[in-house]
Amino acid sequence: MTEYSVIGKRVPKLDALDKATGRAQYGHDVDMPGTLVGKILYANLPHARILNIDTTRAEKVRGVKAVITGKHNPAHNFGYGGDNTPLKGDKVRCRRDEVAAVAAVDDDAANEALELIRVEYEELPALFSAEAALADGAPLVHEDRANNLFTRYDYSHGDAERAFDDADEIVEQEYRLPYVSHAAMETSFALAAFDLQNRLTMWSTTQIPFLLQRDLSEALGMPGRDIRVIQPTIGGAFGRGLDVYPFEPICALLAKHSGKPVRIAFTREEEFFATAVRQPAHVKIRTAAKRDGTLWARDARLLLDAGAYISWGAVTPLVMMETVGSLYRLPHAKFVADVAYSNNPPTGAMRGYGNPQSTFFVETQMDMLAEKLGMDPVEFRLRNANIPNEETPQGLKITTCGLRECITEVAERIGWERRATTDDGRRATDERQTPIVKSKIENRKSKIKRGIGIACTLNVGGGARIYRSDGCGATVKVDDFGRVTLVSGSTEIGQGSETALAQIVAEVLGVRVDDVTVINSDTSVKPWDVGTHASRTTFIAGNAAWIAASEVRQKILDHAAKMLNVAPNHLEMRDRMIRVQGDGDASGKRVAFDKVVRAMHYREDGTVVSGSGWYDPPTKLVDKDTYKGNISAAYGFGAQAAEVEVDVETGQVRVLKLVAAHDVGRAINPMYVEGQIEGGVQMGLGYALTEELQVREGRVLNPSLLDYRVLTALDMPHVESVIVETADPAGPFGAKGVGEMGGNPTAAAIANAIYNAVGVRMNQLPMTGERVLKAIKEKRSETGD
Amino acid sequence: MTEYSVIGKRVPKLDALDKATGRAQYGHDVDMPGTLVGKILYANLPHARILNIDTTRAEKVRGVKAVITGKHNPAHNFGYGGDNTPLKGDKVRCRRDEVAAVAAVDDDAANEALELIRVEYEELPALFSAEAALADGAPLVHEDRANNLFTRYDYSHGDAERAFDDADEIVEQEYRLPYVSHAAMETSFALAAFDLQNRLTMWSTTQIPFLLQRDLSEALGMPGRDIRVIQPTIGGAFGRGLDVYPFEPICALLAKHSGKPVRIAFTREEEFFATAVRQPAHVKIRTAAKRDGTLWARDARLLLDAGAYISWGAVTPLVMMETVGSLYRLPHAKFVADVAYSNNPPTGAMRGYGNPQSTFFVETQMDMLAEKLGMDPVEFRLRNANIPNEETPQGLKITTCGLRECITEVAERIGWERRATTDDGRRATDERQTPIVKSKIENRKSKIKRGIGIACTLNVGGGARIYRSDGCGATVKVDDFGRVTLVSGSTEIGQGSETALAQIVAEVLGVRVDDVTVINSDTSVKPWDVGTHASRTTFIAGNAAWIAASEVRQKILDHAAKMLNVAPNHLEMRDRMIRVQGDGDASGKRVAFDKVVRAMHYREDGTVVSGSGWYDPPTKLVDKDTYKGNISAAYGFGAQAAEVEVDVETGQVRVLKLVAAHDVGRAINPMYVEGQIEGGVQMGLGYALTEELQVREGRVLNPSLLDYRVLTALDMPHVESVIVETADPAGPFGAKGVGEMGGNPTAAAIANAIYNAVGVRMNQLPMTGERVLKAIKEKRSETGD
Repeated sequence: MTEYSVIGKRVPKLDALDKATGRAQYGHDVDMPGTLVGKILYANLPHARILNIDTTRAEKVRGVKAVITGKHNPAHNFGYGGDNTPLKGDKVRCRRDEVAAVAAVDDDAANEALELIRVEYEELPALFSAEAALADGAPLVHEDRANNLFTRYDYSHGDAERAFDDADEIVEQEYRLPYVSHAAMETSFALAAFDLQNRLTMWSTTQIPFLLQRDLSEALGMPGRDIRVIQPTIGGAFGRGLDVYPFEPICALLAKHSGKPVRIAFTREEEFFATAVRQPAHVKIRTAAKRDGTLWARDARLLLDAGAYISWGAVTPLVMMETVGSLYRLPHAKFVADVAYSNNPPTGAMRGYGNPQSTFFVETQMDMLAEKLGMDPVEFRLRNANIPNEETPQGLKITTCGLRECITEVAERIGWERRATTDDGRRATDERQTPIVKSKIENRKSKIKRGIGIACTLNVGGGARIYRSDGCGATVKVDDFGRVTLVSGSTEIGQGSETALAQIVAEVLGVRVDDVTVINSDTSVKPWDVGTHASRTTFIAGNAAWIAASEVRQKILDHAAKMLNVAPNHLEMRDRMIRVQGDGDASGKRVAFDKVVRAMHYREDGTVVSGSGWYDPPTKLVDKDTYKGNISAAYGFGAQAAEVEVDVETGQVRVLKLVAAHDVGRAINPMYVEGQIEGGVQMGLGYALTEELQVREGRVLNPSLLDYRVLTALDMPHVESVIVETADPAGPFGAKGVGEMGGNPTAAAIANAIYNAVGVRMNQLPMTGERVLKAIKEKRSETGD
Repeated sequence: MTEYSVIGKRVPKLDALDKATGRAQYGHDVDMPGTLVGKILYANLPHARILNIDTTRAEKVRGVKAVITGKHNPAHNFGYGGDNTPLKGDKVRCRRDEVAAVAAVDDDAANEALELIRVEYEELPALFSAEAALADGAPLVHEDRANNLFTRYDYSHGDAERAFDDADEIVEQEYRLPYVSHAAMETSFALAAFDLQNRLTMWSTTQIPFLLQRDLSEALGMPGRDIRVIQPTIGGAFGRGLDVYPFEPICALLAKHSGKPVRIAFTREEEFFATAVRQPAHVKIRTAAKRDGTLWARDARLLLDAGAYISWGAVTPLVMMETVGSLYRLPHAKFVADVAYSNNPPTGAMRGYGNPQSTFFVETQMDMLAEKLGMDPVEFRLRNANIPNEETPQGLKITTCGLRECITEVAERIGWERRATTDDGRRATDERQTPIVKSKIENRKSKIKRGIGIACTLNVGGGARIYRSDGCGATVKVDDFGRVTLVSGSTEIGQGSETALAQIVAEVLGVRVDDVTVINSDTSVKPWDVGTHASRTTFIAGNAAWIAASEVRQKILDHAAKMLNVAPNHLEMRDRMIRVQGDGDASGKRVAFDKVVRAMHYREDGTVVSGSGWYDPPTKLVDKDTYKGNISAAYGFGAQAAEVEVDVETGQVRVLKLVAAHDVGRAINPMYVEGQIEGGVQMGLGYALTEELQVREGRVLNPSLLDYRVLTALDMPHVESVIVETADPAGPFGAKGVGEMGGNPTAAAIANAIYNAVGVRMNQLPMTGERVLKAIKEKRSETGD
């Protein structure tokens, strides 16, 4: 392996000090002189016709500068489903529907005005589940549609129908997956300001500034060329920022009608009830194998409740079907997902984008099937694991693949050989014996049972073409002093992409990471990029940065070669110096990086040094009928193993240790890879054990961090991250994406560990004490234990 | 002439509305949380040794966060002369020398602290003129130098010594030129903030962000790569921002020592006494002609008082010598200028950069010589005017030249034929007969005498290589919606360059001016440029923008050609549309600009569209011994004619009309060309009649806008601007620079008009009533009138 200077090093994040000391300027810190407070009035009815909105009293409140309702909407719908408007004019379709908004000089005036708006409604029957929405005779959520089915995804390869007939063992299960919230630490934010040419600048916590430019253009009925998006420091996104949501055009409309900049900053309560959520799903899945342990077929049927409006979140079945169709070598697969409208909260994209859901049901089924086959779950997975350089029947062209290494790593590190098996019976362990020791787990006597489980994941790792372009642009310039500026189209949402990109550029140019400034927050400055999603930034933006930096490198080498009278390809760039390769300075032929740059500038026909790059991976949109096609230029893999304790008297699950091994191609910065894995595991653990946005009759019952239980640092078990490197030929320095993977297999690994501990198969998330205890009791009553 | 869509159109400035409505964010509007106020303690002694500075009481003032003195200076001198330090440690050399500075939470605390600093001085004999400074035995301003002569410029061509022997007519005169202040409406400003990696961001009213980066690096002893310069909207500069001055590194040192952002915003009083000024000059000049009216020789000897420290302003003789050596075809020239240190205020660059001074003495001499020859001054000038495509003996390669057209235009428009001549005697005119009528001026009877005068100018119009690079970089990108972004290295200081550059890009790409966003205020984003000086921005940055836009144009045409199945060179881009040339849409073969851009992006192997440009003109630094060489890629010319009334009882001069014709190659935007000419005339009129920074014993006596009399809009005469276009082959769309020219010939034209009115030759500026009256009285006593 090449000896890199910067790649693979644990360089601290460029913005770490600013964030740690409170200097970073988040959206909530952004202010402009004369900025007004914007506030929204929500319907709080799940389904109702709006008869009248009276804003006259609100308009008279001192300090109120604008009051708007649906009649101020531009004549354009927006959103992925083309079904949304900023404010709701005719009827409301969920409790969070925005019916009016005000802009005022302060919070008090804005709140007073909201209270004085009178809305008359005629209530309509409401639909609180996808099942109800798709029942015959259900009322229509959108009356311009024939029914409440937004779309059906119907995928297959091989012959899944017949395959189940040919199979030796089949397992079948239903699953119910909950609403989950991103629960980002910074609540949603927008600041809209029009200039005097009627051009809009929007400060936003978006992840997709260029698509937001397009989306706002649509939502506001104004030319995209007149919209500029600026991203301040972003305090968490996790998919929340992948769509335009009504508060953003509302903010712009308030700015337009008040003639002042307007900011809308969500309260924590709004953040829970008025942002998009991960959609709930009802899943029926069958998985089949041959007696020899060959995985044979999967058939998954899903019903997804998209809520009142359709966002990019409705596309998650595309990702779910990849895990169903291509995690492990699988001859036969069938996947049908119906996405339905309802009067529940609108749903959206969230980290993993369907993968945490599908990995949960696919990987718990793998465990069930292994048991039925009488095989060790690790052995069963190794036998069927994907291998490098193989195209799956779904059309995914797997290049590098470290799945087997990941499985082996986690099995070894969790102490898989200690795992209690059904052959052992379930043995008790002493309650206090929590330190993990390398001895067989004994669960017989105690009320605390221990178990170990494993689960794997497949994730796009080289972008994901879900939009016509998956590209990213970059420019690199070097100033007279050797300061390197990378202008990248990509978006930093806290994941550390800035630093990873700076490392890539620094490695190419042989300079230090802090010699590189990354500019990436303003659509008028940076080149296009589709946005931060699908774990794509290090791979896609990294390639674009690599291309731009390589152009600069070649120019500098060519000139240095003339200065040193050496062929360019005999030179190396390292430590801010250009030297003869392998020369160890023996020849004395060396020249400082910044000196070459100045020499290129200050001469006849001189020039400053810059380069540009554009990278759009050689992938395709999946076929619109068959859903087949190579959506990503590389694929990441991972395995996680968990050891848990289950209290059989309370059902409480305690995770003792979690080992997460992920194939990331090459870790540009192992510290961030670990950070991404650990962050993913933290969300995966929440999905597994504690997090559920409780929605009853369309109402969010737990809109607070106290009741919506995100795991804190103190709640986290020991997570051991293992980086598996496969040096992908398409990635920058071999890197593949890792952003989402860490959260995909966690819930399944824990469910499998719970089964290993107490013998119950959990098919509903989160696996709260109450649910686990119920399952234990049901099992006891079934088995008469 | 090609029919342009945007070039030559009176497009309003892109920032006009923001400036007119107060929305523009000037430096004084820039704020960051926790920013401290920085204030400076000045010596107020012209020359003294610093014995001790006691800051202990100042440090104890509540709210004071840093008090610094010379001992906090980095161990590096800075400035063009390498003779300056942020604070003065050993001795002070002028009254404005900075001896200490404080940073505090508010103005009151800062002022209180300043008052409590005790400085002990030992006073030294001081030098208040260049003559005194160069006298034998004069005390040294800088003790590490052998004497107070900073440098001598010694230029000649032909054989000036002998030429005067061969001449038929010779005129000779001494001139004394005053201190002048830029008097920018926005006072000087700096805001310095260090980040936690010890990198400095400086918000500054600078004109030269990239040189400031270098200068601050030198002044602060820190790597240039760690300095970023951001320019807010700038409220006037006029050369003030062409150097680093002590307050800027002081601001940075205060930020460093307080650990907080620090702003220094000059009071109006500071703006007058603590910024650099145009240096005063003592000039002796002889000019000779042959009897037939051939201009034969000039010999100018100058003594310039640079003050206590040397800035780029000391280089102004380079420009003065061009007017001496190359305005009109001139076989013999000699120019010697001595630049001396003194204990007067430090001097710097100011609009025209020596040219208003030299044009004043050269062009009043031309009038004297014409009179001696018995020739009409217009005829004399026309006879000797520069002509196109001729290299002057000085090495200036004149390409286009509209000097004759300018002379003819102003003579005609001022009504030159009405001019009273010496042959007529001086005829009185009725006091009330102020309307200009097409009748011969009669000055005999009245105490109000009328006169008409003319003067010409030569100015660099294609950059000016006074630094190793005269280049500028540009990038152009087009987004999916047809929004075009130009990132230009150049600097907008109010001159309208942003809009002119947007027009150039818009014309190349066939879009509207307001489709173009210009980004030009941040050194980390924009490519290098030497800065705004020497009337270079439209020419140099315009060429760079043209190159970048042309690359984009070609890419788009190539793709459109494929879409339309037409050869690219048969297509034209106009009105946001690509069409077949001359087709008038008959073929229906057309496609919208933004549609092509999207088609280029959203396809296999697609890409976003961008281009880059770098332009450094094919000029050379003048030879360091002979001072010869082609400093600029093009030269601008102009003539101004003034009609004045002189009150012989008070000496008051009233300008009735001023006609200014300037050869600008091509007016990208006639409105700004007129604006630049009128603004130049306004400064030229001030230089001629009212403005003088009164310095006595090194002290500024009139540091206020009330006493330093800048002409207001109400004081302005009718100015008729005439644009002469010569379509320079090197300029973007034929443009040459115009930024400085308007102010160069004004004082000479008025002096010549005064002579025409009352027969006195004014050789001192400004030509105040007092001075004119004195001259009239002296003449009367000489002639016995």
